[in-house]
Amino acid sequence: MASNVAAERPLRPAKRVSGQRQDVWSIVNEAAAASPVQPIVNMGQGFFGYNPPPFVIDAAREALDKVECNQYSPTRGRPRLKKALADAYSPFFGKKLDPDTEITITTGANEGMLSAFMGFIEEGDEVIVFEPFFDQYLSNIEMPGGKVVYVPLHPPPNGAFETSSASEWKVDMKELERAITPQTRMIVINTPHNPIGKVFSRDELLAIGDLCVKHNIIILSDEVYDRLYYVPFTRIATLSPEIARLTLTVGSAGKNFYATGWRVGWLIGPEHLITYVSAAHTRICYSSVSPLQEAAAVGFEKAEEMGFWDESKKDMLSKMKRFNEVWDELGLPYSEPEGGYFVLVNLKKVRLPDDYDFPPHVVERPRDFKLSWFLIKEVGVAAIPPTEFYTPENAHIAENYLRFAVCKNDDVLETAKERLRGLKKYIADD
Amino acid sequence: MASNVAAERPLRPAKRVSGQRQDVWSIVNEAAAASPVQPIVNMGQGFFGYNPPPFVIDAAREALDKVECNQYSPTRGRPRLKKALADAYSPFFGKKLDPDTEITITTGANEGMLSAFMGFIEEGDEVIVFEPFFDQYLSNIEMPGGKVVYVPLHPPPNGAFETSSASEWKVDMKELERAITPQTRMIVINTPHNPIGKVFSRDELLAIGDLCVKHNIIILSDEVYDRLYYVPFTRIATLSPEIARLTLTVGSAGKNFYATGWRVGWLIGPEHLITYVSAAHTRICYSSVSPLQEAAAVGFEKAEEMGFWDESKKDMLSKMKRFNEVWDELGLPYSEPEGGYFVLVNLKKVRLPDDYDFPPHVVERPRDFKLSWFLIKEVGVAAIPPTEFYTPENAHIAENYLRFAVCKNDDVLETAKERLRGLKKYIADD
Ligand SMILES: Cc1ncc(COP(=O)(O)O)c(C=O)c1O
Ligand SMILES: Cc1ncc(COP(=O)(O)O)c(C=O)c1O
Repeated sequence: MASNVAAERPLRPAKRVSGQRQDVWSIVNEAAAASPVQPIVNMGQGFFGYNPPPFVIDAAREALDKVECNQYSPTRGRPRLKKALADAYSPFFGKKLDPDTEITITTGANEGMLSAFMGFIEEGDEVIVFEPFFDQYLSNIEMPGGKVVYVPLHPPPNGAFETSSASEWKVDMKELERAITPQTRMIVINTPHNPIGKVFSRDELLAIGDLCVKHNIIILSDEVYDRLYYVPFTRIATLSPEIARLTLTVGSAGKNFYATGWRVGWLIGPEHLITYVSAAHTRICYSSVSPLQEAAAVGFEKAEEMGFWDESKKDMLSKMKRFNEVWDELGLPYSEPEGGYFVLVNLKKVRLPDDYDFPPHVVERPRDFKLSWFLIKEVGVAAIPPTEFYTPENAHIAENYLRFAVCKNDDVLETAKERLRGLKKYIADD
Repeated sequence: MASNVAAERPLRPAKRVSGQRQDVWSIVNEAAAASPVQPIVNMGQGFFGYNPPPFVIDAAREALDKVECNQYSPTRGRPRLKKALADAYSPFFGKKLDPDTEITITTGANEGMLSAFMGFIEEGDEVIVFEPFFDQYLSNIEMPGGKVVYVPLHPPPNGAFETSSASEWKVDMKELERAITPQTRMIVINTPHNPIGKVFSRDELLAIGDLCVKHNIIILSDEVYDRLYYVPFTRIATLSPEIARLTLTVGSAGKNFYATGWRVGWLIGPEHLITYVSAAHTRICYSSVSPLQEAAAVGFEKAEEMGFWDESKKDMLSKMKRFNEVWDELGLPYSEPEGGYFVLVNLKKVRLPDDYDFPPHVVERPRDFKLSWFLIKEVGVAAIPPTEFYTPENAHIAENYLRFAVCKNDDVLETAKERLRGLKKYIADD
């Protein structure tokens, strides 16, 4: 029968989803499940090990009682959240933000960035991304047909041997300028940076911003860790009116309020950019989760007066310091974070046993994948191999590093440290 | 200065978001704001005028207390929701659904359908869509480069003069077959249908399904109103193994539990399709809202035993009957819905005053836009002009209809009826 022949024809997926390489999350999960140390301490993914603050949870509960908070929000977001954001961010931007035209709410920062690319990128347009990058950028740029152009952040030359500030990861401005072509439409900046922990300096941002003005390049500034900085923090949008005209600033209630599963994010920018981000968002998700937008609104209304932002920053910095003690003890160098909740540790000194039994899909990956596998199996602590956030050409830069997320309860951090002390016997000081 | 010249260059948006026509929702909102009757009764958009049932709201509250329910869910969805769906839907599908491979959770049905198109459509592929259509289909198909091919549902020939069943809107199978080309990759079916209220019959679905098997076309069956049917309801995926192999079934917790703002949807289908839908979803939203997934899981665990599904159907049918009395009174014919919560009413008999002052952007649209504007301004009831859900060529089919959403409290429906009686003086029986 003809229909049976057809029924056997393969249903090919679109190229954009047919990639076969096993992703880092599933490799880490697989190792975690197979580890003799159970349960492992998971410092891999950047979710919080604790709940949002009570005033935000309470606001979510209250929103659930209101009919309109359970129904479709306007596509650009609930008015209360847009207003709360305008009120909270106007002082930082040094101008009164218009909640109706200069802010749009998205389904997490992630879908917000996709909306920005969908709003401006067409087949063949180029987008500059620094390496290492947040991995979702790539598929988000490629979905509308964009081409990613990579510019590496250069690590501290002595990173394998001594701890230094994350600020030592540097942009080579000449290299950045060479990456610009007539097809360059956008650039992505991430500050505070995942995974490096770098907070871009005012001078760096000014240099990048001026280059974008010169070449009319839209700046997508991913500032999801904007409440967690331990050195002065500059927003590129505030540096000049010419730069502001080109800049979309991305935020995330998930990161701000310890609620990564809430999927509430936003973009702030001039109306001539926000209009199209919002149009794209409408076509992607229609609108974003309504009751949790309302809760985030209350969060922004109250956070400042409750001292939450200060507390949040202080807490995270103390977690960072608490955890990094173990590296000082072990004599393993790291990049001291200037912001965010990730720390990159250099494990070049850790000697992996020659005959260690790595599975084939780990053997073929750079050394950091082996380090990650080894740590999970031998000491029961999961961390992310950062070469996943590099192109193959530049992966060598990060092959001795691992990324640890410290947004976990203090007792969990202490357990992790205790376990990591078990690395001592593998460390060789040459 | 060179930089100032660049700063004035326009920032062109991508073609996919640069459309200029004012959308139906903003036209309706504008009329609503300008109406002398305040507040208007809004029967336009399909959001519920009441809250989700207490057992679901309570589950949402409880989820907010659990750390893991506030953090990133797995990209394919929370295990509890996938299991609850597998348990709830296995009996309908007549087979045991595998929660890990045959179900994936999305950010509403909307982003679920986008994920399906992103998973299978490449530049130039064709997707068949019936007219009238749910408007988001079009942009969702076009985003990955797909081309929409339209096939009209033919209205009852006597629709302007007598009320008849929504089943009288018919597919011409020959016309459907002629629309298939070697580029046809997918077809979208929607049952129960928005805006018609038609529930596709077993025979219709079998004919469509067999055609898809013959041509190896993936079927995206949008069944978001699957708990609201007033005649026997068939799921196309259940008609044969050959059809099942090609079918993705779409559902929505928002529609099922009166919570359109929760943005929890899902797709059910064979692993060889779900894998790629899920891969696309990961690239679009990363994961969907976590605590409300957990609440939806509890919803599915409890709804059957609590008699919620029966109650929900009974309630909506009684609202439908209650509201449609006014059309019987006025002698205005409608398509009696077989499912869902929309009713299409034919207002050909309503005489719009010759000198009525419509704004220019309404004047240039088909008659239903004028009817909608007129109803809002003169009687204070908002309804949607369905030609918005047609291509210009076929818009004439619906130019005398308006779509009313009856998912509102009974007192609101009574107010609407009272106001609609004011149409009497404009009705001419020839
Ligand atoms: C740099 C960066 N941007 C964006 C995101 C995504 O944020 P959201 O959870 O709001 O989508 C993350 C999450 O890890 C991130 O690290
Ligand atoms: C036919 C149809 N499909 C899908 C949707 C969207 O569902 P959700 O709100 O779950 O995205 C709607 C909403 O109106 C609809 O009418």
